[in-house]
Formats: sequence, structure tokens, C-alpha cells
Amino acid sequence: MGDVQARMEAALARLLPAKHMPPSRLHAAMRYATLEGGKRVRPLLAFAAGEVSSADPQRLEVAAAAVELIHAYSLVHDDLPCMDDDVLRRGKPTVHVEYDEATAMLVGDALQSLAFQLICEHRIADDAQRQLEMVKVLAAAAGSRGMAGGQQIDLEATGSALSLPELEFMHIHKTGALIRAAVMIGVACGKEISAEEKNKLDKFSKAIGLAFQVVDDVLDYDASSATLGKTAGKDSQQGKPTYVSLMGLPRARELAQELRAEAHAALESLGGRGRRLGELADFIVLRKF
Amino acid sequence: MGDVQARMEAALARLLPAKHMPPSRLHAAMRYATLEGGKRVRPLLAFAAGEVSSADPQRLEVAAAAVELIHAYSLVHDDLPCMDDDVLRRGKPTVHVEYDEATAMLVGDALQSLAFQLICEHRIADDAQRQLEMVKVLAAAAGSRGMAGGQQIDLEATGSALSLPELEFMHIHKTGALIRAAVMIGVACGKEISAEEKNKLDKFSKAIGLAFQVVDDVLDYDASSATLGKTAGKDSQQGKPTYVSLMGLPRARELAQELRAEAHAALESLGGRGRRLGELADFIVLRKF
Repeated sequence: MGDVQARMEAALARLLPAKHMPPSRLHAAMRYATLEGGKRVRPLLAFAAGEVSSADPQRLEVAAAAVELIHAYSLVHDDLPCMDDDVLRRGKPTVHVEYDEATAMLVGDALQSLAFQLICEHRIADDAQRQLEMVKVLAAAAGSRGMAGGQQIDLEATGSALSLPELEFMHIHKTGALIRAAVMIGVACGKEISAEEKNKLDKFSKAIGLAFQVVDDVLDYDASSATLGKTAGKDSQQGKPTYVSLMGLPRARELAQELRAEAHAALESLGGRGRRLGELADFIVLRKF
Repeated sequence: MGDVQARMEAALARLLPAKHMPPSRLHAAMRYATLEGGKRVRPLLAFAAGEVSSADPQRLEVAAAAVELIHAYSLVHDDLPCMDDDVLRRGKPTVHVEYDEATAMLVGDALQSLAFQLICEHRIADDAQRQLEMVKVLAAAAGSRGMAGGQQIDLEATGSALSLPELEFMHIHKTGALIRAAVMIGVACGKEISAEEKNKLDKFSKAIGLAFQVVDDVLDYDASSATLGKTAGKDSQQGKPTYVSLMGLPRARELAQELRAEAHAALESLGGRGRRLGELADFIVLRKF
């Protein structure tokens, strides 16, 4: 995991526009938003999925970077005053605090464009048609029926009482779609796999995407501000429905373990090729930060 | 022109997510931001460029829609309080006024994703590799070294004294890049053209992109609020450098005509295939709104 994280840091540093390249304030802010931070969960998933199809790590770097840039852009926009109004992210001032709001908006916009540019301008799949499909998967995962749509549902849910299925619907869009894209794009970098195997990976992705959110809610509930690097307990303070607020802490912890078991079950038929994905499922559920 | 505009309105209405599809508030706002408005200059350019390579109009619809969605997203974000803080656009309340700021931000984000999704999920070029290059052209034109970068330069220029080359540099990014992309993506929908012809179209695009901005500055300077549909004279009020403020009204008008002549000169070798592009050059320079 440390290897992939270090590799991704170097890849992102290389693939982002250089700081001195004009408009340099924008490029510096894009680097600030993306580098030196985060667990790189989506790149880790892309690399682990690449093991299923024996994908070339150089292709995976680009694919994983594209997914991570979409994630990074969403954090920058999500932190803005008109959204969550957060001043800290990964222990550092958020982009609009360090720079300004207008720059932060453009940082997000430009990171999104860059994700699509990268995934087109490097050869990362065996043929161009497959690569075009990867771009489509990423665009759909980012858009109004994916991540951006999930954020809209989240906005509308603040202060209202969601049912558990509604909460799940929100998270499938808000975080699940991009996590699924990381897995699907990672696996597409390598040899073709069967429809049956894709289906299993889809099930894995769904379980792990939800588990990630459940664990986030648990951590948000009981972690201190210091260890989480963002204002703890903020979601519940803002009246946002969480798994903990809807089902209580013990049941939320149980649910995370159930989803972890589901994720492992989905990997069974893949044998050794799914080993790293299984390790990531454990990491996601057992992490403390 | 009216035909293409009507055709584009129908295409955009069909390609945007339906209003009733959840999250419906986001989808309604995306449609509000995009439909029933605008001169559709970029789609007109894409269709006219398509005549150069005998492109199929059904392909052009999708290509032009993708470019127009990028343009529409940029307007929504540009109008936000942290940017230009505009309350009127095309005579209607801007998206953040009609909806709210957070929704407006997500509308822009999701329109950008949708542009890339559309241009991947429809077959719009003779082969997938060429289509991948079209996506790359659009992404580069939208990103930090294109439109978003131009907006950053614009932000930093407000209240400062730009030289004419600096103003030109800003506009080549802010509006020129996407205008060039409209032409290049339009022509790529059809038969392969020669490198020499591509080069001519590049020259045409550069001239027409700058002409568009010079005319915008002239119109902004002397148009009334009613005919322009946005607060007139706003750029100069905000201390933004314009062609009129830098070179005076008579010279700016002259420059627009010179650029129009340059655009026509670039089309000469194309003969009848460049006729519509030439008409658009005239339209862009001679328009009164």
C-alpha cells in the first residue's frame, strides 16, 4: 500500500501542470489541492483491481490519477462556503482559505478537465474503443447521476429525516459511483475479463463503497478533530443524516463488518487475483482515520 | 443558422437528463442553465466546420452539444457571487439566483461531466482513436491551459493594467480555446482533412475567437442593458481591461474588421467547403447583440 501511495504521489506530481507554468497561481492551487494528502483509497482500488487483469502499472498510474483528480476536485468544491464551508482538510487550510473562493472554484473545474484529458492522452487500454468506454465510465460516475448528483441529494437531505434506503441511495451516488469507477477503470487497463467477473467486481465495489461511508460516519461520530484532520462530528452538528444517527453506533459497526464480508464473498471466485482487493476491503473497514 | 439553432435546441433537450429524473432539482437546473438561450455560436461553428469534412449532422449534434455544455457550465460558474456576481443572463435570473449557489456549482460540475460523457458514448468519428483525440481536444480547451486558465487570468487582471498582448493572451485562453475546439471537433466528425487544411482552420479559429471578444467588448461598451440581456458596461465598471479601454472604440472596431478579413483569408483554399464558416465570421463581427 505504501508503495502504491508513493508511486501515486510521484505520478500526480508529474501529471499535474508545473507550478511555474502560467496561470501559475491556478496551477499552484491545483497542486496544493491534490498533492501531499489523502489516503489515495481510489488509486489503491484501481491498482488492486489492475491485479485482477494483470494490468501494466504505468497504465494504472494514469487511470488512478484521473480518478483521484475527480475526487480531489469534488473535495475542493465541497469545502466551499456555499457547500460544507470547511476550513480544514487533511490538516491543512482548504483551498479557498489558502487561496480564495474564485480560485478554488476554478481549481475544481480545471482538475475535472485534467482528469479527462489524462485518461485520453495516454494509451491505457489495449484498444481505443475500450479506452473511450473508460472515459465514459469516469464521466458518468462524476456526473449528475453519480457523484455530483449524490452531492445534490446530500444538500437537500441536510436537516431532513432520511430513511435508511434514502441514505443508501445518496451514498451510492456520492461516494459509491467513483469507487466503482476506480475498480472498473483499473481492471480495464489490463486483459479482458469475463462478464461474470465484472459482475463480481461490481458487487465488490458496491459493498466497499457503502462500507467506506458507514465507517466514515462511525469515525466522524467518535473520532477527535486531531486524528481525523477535519472538524469532527460536523455531519451530525449540521443535521446531516448518517448511519450512526439512523441506526446507532453498534449497529453501524456491525453493518460495516457485514459489508466487508460481502466484499470478500464477491472476490471468492477470483482466487489470488482478488487478494489485494480483499486486503483493501479490510483496510477500509478497519482503518482508524 | 436558424435551422442549426433549432436543431441544437432539440438535441440539447434530448441529451440532457430529463427533469423528472432524480436528483430532479439538479436536472431541472441543468436544463434551465442550458436550454432556451444563447446564440449557440460554438454549435454553429461546429456545424459549419463539419461542412468542410462532409460530416454527418447527427454526429455534429453530439459534438456541438458537448462543446455547448462546457460553455454553459462556464457561464453558470462565472455568474456566481465569488466570480462575476451576475444576476441576469440572457434576460433570465442566473442559476444561483433562480436556484441557489450550491446547486449552481453542482450544475456547472455536472454539465462538464455530461459533456465528456456524451462525446464518448455516441459514435461521432470514423474510428475510436480519433474520437479519443476529440475528447482530449475538448478537455484541454476547457482546462487550466484553456478556458479555466483564461478565467483565472481574468480574475487576476481585474483592477490591474494589462498590456494588449496580455489581454490577447487572456482571451485566447478564456474564449478562444473553446471556439477552436468547436471548429476542430466539428471537422473531426467527418472525413479526414489534410494537415495543411487543419492549419488553416486553426488560423481561422484564432482570428474568429479574438474577433468575438473584441466585438463583445465593443457591444459591452455601447449596448444598452435591454438588448444585451446582461448588465451593460459591467466589464469597464469592474475595472476589467477591454479592447475598448486599451485601444479606444474606433480602433477596436477596426481590429474586429481586420480579424474578420484574416478569418476569410484563412478559408480561401477551402473554396465552397468553407462558405458557412465565412458567413459565421461575418455574423460574429457584424452582430448587434
